[in-house]
Amino acid sequence: MTNRIAEGARRKPRTKRLRKLRTSIAEKGLDALLLSQPENLRYLSGFTGSSGWLLISGQNVILATDFRYMEQAKDESPDFEIIQTKRELRDWLPGLVSDLGWHKLGFETNSTSYEFYHKLSEAIKARQVNLDLVPTTGIVEQLRSIKEPEELGFIKKAVELVDAVFEQAKTIIRPGITEKEAAWEIEKILRQEGSEGMPFEIIMASGPNSALPHARPTEKIIRSGEPVLIDMGARISGYCSDFSRTLLLGKADKTLQKIYNIVLKAQTTAIEGVESGMDASQADQLARSVVEQAGYGDAFGHGLGHGVGLAVHESPRLGPSSSDSLADGMVFTIEPGIYLAGQGGIRIEDMVVLENGKAKVLSKAKGK
Amino acid sequence: MTNRIAEGARRKPRTKRLRKLRTSIAEKGLDALLLSQPENLRYLSGFTGSSGWLLISGQNVILATDFRYMEQAKDESPDFEIIQTKRELRDWLPGLVSDLGWHKLGFETNSTSYEFYHKLSEAIKARQVNLDLVPTTGIVEQLRSIKEPEELGFIKKAVELVDAVFEQAKTIIRPGITEKEAAWEIEKILRQEGSEGMPFEIIMASGPNSALPHARPTEKIIRSGEPVLIDMGARISGYCSDFSRTLLLGKADKTLQKIYNIVLKAQTTAIEGVESGMDASQADQLARSVVEQAGYGDAFGHGLGHGVGLAVHESPRLGPSSSDSLADGMVFTIEPGIYLAGQGGIRIEDMVVLENGKAKVLSKAKGK
Repeated sequence: MTNRIAEGARRKPRTKRLRKLRTSIAEKGLDALLLSQPENLRYLSGFTGSSGWLLISGQNVILATDFRYMEQAKDESPDFEIIQTKRELRDWLPGLVSDLGWHKLGFETNSTSYEFYHKLSEAIKARQVNLDLVPTTGIVEQLRSIKEPEELGFIKKAVELVDAVFEQAKTIIRPGITEKEAAWEIEKILRQEGSEGMPFEIIMASGPNSALPHARPTEKIIRSGEPVLIDMGARISGYCSDFSRTLLLGKADKTLQKIYNIVLKAQTTAIEGVESGMDASQADQLARSVVEQAGYGDAFGHGLGHGVGLAVHESPRLGPSSSDSLADGMVFTIEPGIYLAGQGGIRIEDMVVLENGKAKVLSKAKGK
Repeated sequence: MTNRIAEGARRKPRTKRLRKLRTSIAEKGLDALLLSQPENLRYLSGFTGSSGWLLISGQNVILATDFRYMEQAKDESPDFEIIQTKRELRDWLPGLVSDLGWHKLGFETNSTSYEFYHKLSEAIKARQVNLDLVPTTGIVEQLRSIKEPEELGFIKKAVELVDAVFEQAKTIIRPGITEKEAAWEIEKILRQEGSEGMPFEIIMASGPNSALPHARPTEKIIRSGEPVLIDMGARISGYCSDFSRTLLLGKADKTLQKIYNIVLKAQTTAIEGVESGMDASQADQLARSVVEQAGYGDAFGHGLGHGVGLAVHESPRLGPSSSDSLADGMVFTIEPGIYLAGQGGIRIEDMVVLENGKAKVLSKAKGK
């Protein structure tokens, strides 16, 4: 079932990723790193099961998972030592760490629960193992934020699929159909054309519903003269795309026409102005200034965008309070919006990749 | 869009839930409880957004969410005080808590990350607020594990939908179709017949793939003589169902026939023997003994079952190391399995509700 040739070719980038990770581990003075975040596992080992652990040191690459995923782990991560776990991690980790002679083990602070950390700490104490648990944040996420050519290839396929389906969506979204029906018609095409599930539930919000940035499709019938906000993505070989347009059906309200043009100008300004080396908060400000100057600053209540890769929301985060900086190889969305409660909202979203210092738009789909 | 009448009727159980929760809060000596787990939020407030916080004290019911979900929050949780958050929780919580005079605030240890807890603790110290963060585990999950009549009604609808679709699935799953095609045909029917998305990706595993308890549908063609394991669910008004059968197509291998009968006997034994008041580990043992006595103990590598409700996996957990106990009103799966690597696997799963001390099977679907 698994395409062995493709798998062989994919091991090479993974070897490179492990090398970079090991440099980070050494720089932080750690003996090893414990990872559980599913996309991080997939990125480093190829393992796609929903439950498992990676333990990476200078010498070892260990994938620990339970009975349910053993066959899959051997198949997807042939270069890893696979351990079948029988009970909780805290039951087997102290012994393993002791055997391997590790004393400083990094863990991921954002995907480790308070409960898990405390139970593991207690187990380590009870077993009298000489081990420090060292908090780390975003080590693998940072590697993941810079896309390799192969990854960019998958992302481009996911973008192209959405581009193609959007052409059909424009005929599906018509007065008389409900939001739910339209979303489901579009999802069926995305899935049939090869998207691996949906990276997120399609947003299909018409009329006043479009003022809810994260609306769920309802039984509301789409009517002429309304704005219809669609936000959808696809997933190819694990990599996501994310795309929004707002269609103004028939003769649209003047205010909506006006805010549409402001949002489009904000987006264009950000796409043209964003540069490698820039703070992500500065990038956000490029678009925000346009919206603020037009008098709608309060109606743009979310960040400008977010990284996209194995996860549909990942590093970098583009927003007023982000501390990320932008670099060549990053792939992210640029999606300003203006939302007027009771009236409607406009969002325009494209994915870009930073290349040679500038943003290149990945989608080919035209505006409205 | 929202059905106001239905919403009004639903407030009553929520008032009762809040009353029970407040008793727990008082018993634990807390001033208030901070909740973030999405199903817990929905259970207590009706709010279905993907990001938000509840703060519950003896006097207050506060729902804090960001710009994207403000309209939705007002609509779904009309009895709650809605706060629009602008920055991180740690930026606004210390001030709010100080204004409300709270000194002991419980938080959920299993849905709070190490990072979040530490940043919040630092913010509280920096603001010199006299507040203890008190770890709590499973307070709302325990309330959720006992289903109210209305909840059971939704669960039954989700079970009935899967029952009906399973009749069609038996004609879709035939030699010549791929696992992926069959899974997609079935998903389309489930969705078209009213399931709100899929509570989990359908498992459709044929031949040796059925030995992988959590297999994903592949391009493999289903052949005569193979076992085909299907595991699927539906969601109605937020509540899930979960159901598995293993079809033996055509003339099945003798070993598979044999293990099928063992799994069926294990399941029947558990369904008949399970009782309110029993430890969940004892319930597991009812089925496990049958499998062990038949010599396949090592091939039943997962727990007997799990609670089902707003989440497809929730309390109670039925497994050898579970510390839960069973009580009237609980709804859970009974799903023993035997998996033989390279050959195939069998799993039979039904949902039951504990009523008058005994298990009542919810699904009507017959075996193979």
